[in-house]
Amino acid sequence: MVNPSVRDYLRANRERHLGELFDLLRFPSVANETHDPDPCRQCAEWLRDRAAGLGFDAGIVETPGKPSLIAHLNVSDDAPTLLVYGHYDVQPAEPLELWESPPFEPEIRDGAIYARGANDDKGQLYAHLMAIEALRETDGVPVNVAMLIEGEEEIGSPNLEPLVRRRADELRADAAVISDCEWYDERMPSITSGLRGLAYLELTVTGPAADLHSGIHGGAVRNPVNALAKLVGGLHDADGRVTIPGFYDDVLPLSDEEREQWRELDFDADAYAASLGVPVLDGGERGLDVLERRWARPTLDCNGIVGGYTAPGSKTIIPSRASAKISMRLVPDQDPDRIVESFRRYVADRAPAGVSTRIEVHAGGRPVLLNREFPEMQAGRDALAEAFGRPATFVRTGASVPVTELIQRLLGLDAVMMGFGLPDDNLHSPNERFRLSQLDGGAVAAATFMQKLAECARR
Amino acid sequence: MVNPSVRDYLRANRERHLGELFDLLRFPSVANETHDPDPCRQCAEWLRDRAAGLGFDAGIVETPGKPSLIAHLNVSDDAPTLLVYGHYDVQPAEPLELWESPPFEPEIRDGAIYARGANDDKGQLYAHLMAIEALRETDGVPVNVAMLIEGEEEIGSPNLEPLVRRRADELRADAAVISDCEWYDERMPSITSGLRGLAYLELTVTGPAADLHSGIHGGAVRNPVNALAKLVGGLHDADGRVTIPGFYDDVLPLSDEEREQWRELDFDADAYAASLGVPVLDGGERGLDVLERRWARPTLDCNGIVGGYTAPGSKTIIPSRASAKISMRLVPDQDPDRIVESFRRYVADRAPAGVSTRIEVHAGGRPVLLNREFPEMQAGRDALAEAFGRPATFVRTGASVPVTELIQRLLGLDAVMMGFGLPDDNLHSPNERFRLSQLDGGAVAAATFMQKLAECARR
Repeated sequence: MVNPSVRDYLRANRERHLGELFDLLRFPSVANETHDPDPCRQCAEWLRDRAAGLGFDAGIVETPGKPSLIAHLNVSDDAPTLLVYGHYDVQPAEPLELWESPPFEPEIRDGAIYARGANDDKGQLYAHLMAIEALRETDGVPVNVAMLIEGEEEIGSPNLEPLVRRRADELRADAAVISDCEWYDERMPSITSGLRGLAYLELTVTGPAADLHSGIHGGAVRNPVNALAKLVGGLHDADGRVTIPGFYDDVLPLSDEEREQWRELDFDADAYAASLGVPVLDGGERGLDVLERRWARPTLDCNGIVGGYTAPGSKTIIPSRASAKISMRLVPDQDPDRIVESFRRYVADRAPAGVSTRIEVHAGGRPVLLNREFPEMQAGRDALAEAFGRPATFVRTGASVPVTELIQRLLGLDAVMMGFGLPDDNLHSPNERFRLSQLDGGAVAAATFMQKLAECARR
Repeated sequence: MVNPSVRDYLRANRERHLGELFDLLRFPSVANETHDPDPCRQCAEWLRDRAAGLGFDAGIVETPGKPSLIAHLNVSDDAPTLLVYGHYDVQPAEPLELWESPPFEPEIRDGAIYARGANDDKGQLYAHLMAIEALRETDGVPVNVAMLIEGEEEIGSPNLEPLVRRRADELRADAAVISDCEWYDERMPSITSGLRGLAYLELTVTGPAADLHSGIHGGAVRNPVNALAKLVGGLHDADGRVTIPGFYDDVLPLSDEEREQWRELDFDADAYAASLGVPVLDGGERGLDVLERRWARPTLDCNGIVGGYTAPGSKTIIPSRASAKISMRLVPDQDPDRIVESFRRYVADRAPAGVSTRIEVHAGGRPVLLNREFPEMQAGRDALAEAFGRPATFVRTGASVPVTELIQRLLGLDAVMMGFGLPDDNLHSPNERFRLSQLDGGAVAAATFMQKLAECARR
């Protein structure tokens, strides 16, 4: 049952909440090492102060990277405890020239907030803070809340596992909720029941000691850019399958039941292709459905490549080196470390003698499947349905949210991935946005979910 | 016979000449479109004034690109006319951090001038100006001199053919000399008898309308960087042969005679590999000698590649586009236009449906073979031998000097390619240099060559 007083409170405080969210969005809190680290700390401190204002016992937790925040709101020893996860770091905003309004100066256009992080994840996280405030000021917060907010999700949460291990006692809970995901589409509120893992590395190929004249030396010296292109180009076969030996060995096949459920989602490939601006969906493995390719099959993408002369015009050189950033999305039961090892062997076996290669691992995270049968999952599904007035469904996502697997493996909880984002919110792209209706509904859903959890516990 | 008075004059004026050459080297006269065009014009004007000071009737010739200079020194209607070619533009100096001294602040270290253009081609060109001045002030200039100095050689001389056609009457000569080439090695003064041609293009692959989240969309969308890598990686087979259909159709095989002469050069592959900092010379076609691969076989090199996220760290995107600069060195009788057409077909046949491709041609130039039997060739060889006190040989080069083919095709002259550079002068690389001994000897050789030409004509 939707709680009218929570809705009323949220409506009455909307302008102030938007102003606060805009303050949060103004921090250019990019965790990437090339960006100024100060905004990350300021953002963590802003969240600590905001949580303290809601009655949380909140403290910054230092890591070797960007600081995290752990906060507790204890309402009753008899109430269950909910762990709420979010992250304050955002993707780099580049290329800046493609933004219609500056990425860190939030702006409302056509019913949506445009800013880097508006959806991912500041907006979704903020909906929970709005919910807790609204409950506090109306019916009361019905569960104890533990909050974990990190600042390195977009770079693969490299320091999160040690933190969760170290602070496991403070993070113990009866349920966990993560709002860092999206709906299937605007009509269909969704709980995410599976995420792909990640192995992200950088391959550097080095040839001659310096850039050489390509006329004088061309034909004698192995060109590192050509060598890199051959290595990267060879990573897929003609059917779109990844050629790294053993790459598919541990892939869990999609169950007939889940495949059948996804078929019922009635995926519109043409509309999807049009929304991305591509003529045809020919990525991934030939012969499989698009949703299976995105949600249940591993993929390999080159995220960036650079070498030699890249300014306008021409320069006739054999470059000294070239490098490629390569990310692999993994599915259960692939193991990131084993995949990186296989990648190393692929390169060692194929790299020509005239160049040297180096592989640097940037990030890794395990894939995860969540149990869709838990009562908390049903509570999340019901909360979404009530808040938005539409039935909710189960989906998976091809993206990674590393904390999900850590919560499962280290805290023994299958988190309820109750997202509020929509698939055309330009995540990780210019003009990221978050619909005001999703923010408002998300806050109601978050509050309703807490009330349903408390009811579950009382039963 | 070496001319003692010319040597004496050069020795007496060495410091002033070096100062003037340093002035010339200080212009950052990069023709590439991203660089400031002003230094090119200033450099052309400096050369015009310098030529005028030597008695030339000198004038700037405008082109759609950088200005050229045509100058005439008429000493006698009975004397033969020598066309001297040079170029004042230089390669971009990047990467700047690898220079031991700033590229446009010339410095003498260990008997060599270090600066961008010290060798290529300001230093070699300046040797001719020194020679003309020395002859003028001693024995007299024995030939009429027409001088053609352009400012776009390093970008493939895109505006030179129309200029040579338009001004053919002013450029008519009995012989031509080009000093924009190098010796086989320090012990062996060399005349260059063949040059490779060039086809330089840029291939751009475009996928989704914007960068996409590689987790959410990976497996659905064709990645333009992976697609580009597969296209570029597929340009060579396992034996190092270029796979563009028809690429080798018009290649003139190396004659047994020339192959035999090159064997006598006793090429030291190990020393060459060591000088470039590579473990092995595995570029080009497997099974052929290194000199044949560099001088008489066509090659394909990627000069630069870029796409997606290239800053330090990681960003998980499917980039919207990627591009590669690709140069092909061509040999007689390959035609650059036909090769570009074949490249277009290669891309059209192989590009996947999910991306679009675009090919932009940056530069093209035909390969050239020069007649080694002409008397002027012998005069050049003798002049080098006398000036440096060592016998001179014939070599080819894998580089392109587009004017050579234009002089042959449009003016009917096989130019004498009498270079003064050495192979370890770091052409097109950081720390480009030119030995003082090569500058001094080059000026003597240039003067001696003019005297020998005059003798040829008198006979």
